[in-house]
Amino acid sequence: MSIRIGILGYGNLGRGVEAAIGQNPDLELAAVFTRRPPETLRIQTAGVKVLAEAELKHRQGDIDVLVICGGSATDLPVQTPKYAALYNVVDSFDTHARVPEHFAAADAAAREAGKVCVISCGWDPGMFSLNRLYAGAILPQGRDYTFWGKGVSQGHSDAVRRIEGVMDARQYTIPVPQAVEAVRKGENPELSTRQKHTRECFVVAKEGADRAKIEQEIKTMPNYFADYDTTVHFISQEEMQRDHSGLPHGGNVIRTGVTGSGNGHVIEYRLNLSSNPEFTGAVLAAYARAAFRMNSEGAAGCKTVFDIAPAYLSPLSGEELRAHLL
Amino acid sequence: MSIRIGILGYGNLGRGVEAAIGQNPDLELAAVFTRRPPETLRIQTAGVKVLAEAELKHRQGDIDVLVICGGSATDLPVQTPKYAALYNVVDSFDTHARVPEHFAAADAAAREAGKVCVISCGWDPGMFSLNRLYAGAILPQGRDYTFWGKGVSQGHSDAVRRIEGVMDARQYTIPVPQAVEAVRKGENPELSTRQKHTRECFVVAKEGADRAKIEQEIKTMPNYFADYDTTVHFISQEEMQRDHSGLPHGGNVIRTGVTGSGNGHVIEYRLNLSSNPEFTGAVLAAYARAAFRMNSEGAAGCKTVFDIAPAYLSPLSGEELRAHLL
Repeated sequence: MSIRIGILGYGNLGRGVEAAIGQNPDLELAAVFTRRPPETLRIQTAGVKVLAEAELKHRQGDIDVLVICGGSATDLPVQTPKYAALYNVVDSFDTHARVPEHFAAADAAAREAGKVCVISCGWDPGMFSLNRLYAGAILPQGRDYTFWGKGVSQGHSDAVRRIEGVMDARQYTIPVPQAVEAVRKGENPELSTRQKHTRECFVVAKEGADRAKIEQEIKTMPNYFADYDTTVHFISQEEMQRDHSGLPHGGNVIRTGVTGSGNGHVIEYRLNLSSNPEFTGAVLAAYARAAFRMNSEGAAGCKTVFDIAPAYLSPLSGEELRAHLL
Repeated sequence: MSIRIGILGYGNLGRGVEAAIGQNPDLELAAVFTRRPPETLRIQTAGVKVLAEAELKHRQGDIDVLVICGGSATDLPVQTPKYAALYNVVDSFDTHARVPEHFAAADAAAREAGKVCVISCGWDPGMFSLNRLYAGAILPQGRDYTFWGKGVSQGHSDAVRRIEGVMDARQYTIPVPQAVEAVRKGENPELSTRQKHTRECFVVAKEGADRAKIEQEIKTMPNYFADYDTTVHFISQEEMQRDHSGLPHGGNVIRTGVTGSGNGHVIEYRLNLSSNPEFTGAVLAAYARAAFRMNSEGAAGCKTVFDIAPAYLSPLSGEELRAHLL
């Protein structure tokens, strides 16, 4: 008996979840739900239906867990509470500042329905959050640092694309190596925004566009670039396609701290990901397994990665885990 | 109301737990229990009693969690089940092959008593185990590598000390940098024992001892050294004291895997510890908090790090965790 997963939303992340399900024999893709006309979607998994989102009203008999792959800005605040009232659900809500209200809305819906809802899964929030918690609990006298990259930031790439004269753009966030090294050495540096990360933009300009003006607009854009050292490269559309079509990302969570009479320790968690959406999808799939199992044991309400015992994520039994991974 | 911790066994690890309790305002050292004559022990924490182990028969009213700091070979297999029948207990049992029987004995005792018993806490087993589980659940198509060091192996140091003519010895386990780099690059190398780690020994020889013979005996010692490239340095007792009195350790757990159409990912967890026993003690203290809380909610039986939701380790509330660490 495999766990039947529904995917709502078939963008990069939805495809990542689909790929992850294919790697886990105990998970099964039951259906993909979309706001687009279902017949316009071609999915990877043979023999699986694509259905209109409206179908979710009455598919509870076919779906054990619904993985919601919408955006955090406008989709998830509506979708997650709505479907937590009908299904066990998992999402990757990543607007840190709005987590409390998202949690409250999802929790109320899931409790009322007797379902489990897991929010904010992925790598940050998600695996990075877990590592901040574990490291902080072990080294209470210490300091956390999070570095992101090298990787593509979709938000920053979009911001550059909105500039007049820009045809296409890709933005990489890059940690400053000296900053990472200083942290690893336990120097506890005070780091400004500029000292932690640099930004690198690859831009395809429209014909006749004013490149100097584009570069100036990027470098002075408030919030996105003004506080960073930014490099801008103009490239051709062919170069963009050839060299920048992937969505790599990653980063480091480092905590340094002291124990006893001043013995220093460094805990570091590092990700180097060729595909951000596929890795995030893989995390969502593992938490879908956990959501189903916890609900099967009677749990209900909203959970985060903090509330879920690690064993629920693995297809292995407790005996197998203790024998092989402990 | 702080959580009252008892420590059984006051060696390096017991002192590490004591130091960790001092860094956690919600934990309180209630008493240290020892097999030695209690009056011969001087502990760090002012005003705390040192008691004979036999006192544990009737101290249930004073102790919320007993952290057992004995050795895995002969102490813990007896002590953990014995005291799991009387207290919530936490241990750092690290004989991987004997985990199943240790778990079974502790589980039976703890269930019968309605207590929580957490076994095999520390960094390996412990934090490294957790990272193997999380990484494996996210990247089912992948491969795990664990490297230890650079750090002092007590077992190997002891083995060298038993050789005729050796007065004192310290053995460092060192990962082979090229092996670690090949793994990080996702090359999935097949690595022999010799290719993963080297061993470095610092030896104080007795006057007139045959150094060539000592070196030969070390390098050919089965299980401990024969399968490794080992370097032996003869030093003075003063140099030993000055340069090798610490107990640093650490290592890396790396999982590499692929998703989708072959996108590679690297997950790495790394520890760099100035004091192995103090770090291990800090992990034990965090799991003591978890044991108390889980038991307060009605849980009973033997648990490992796999079975404990991360939030139980932190003194912060669910709201605080979601607001600040997610």
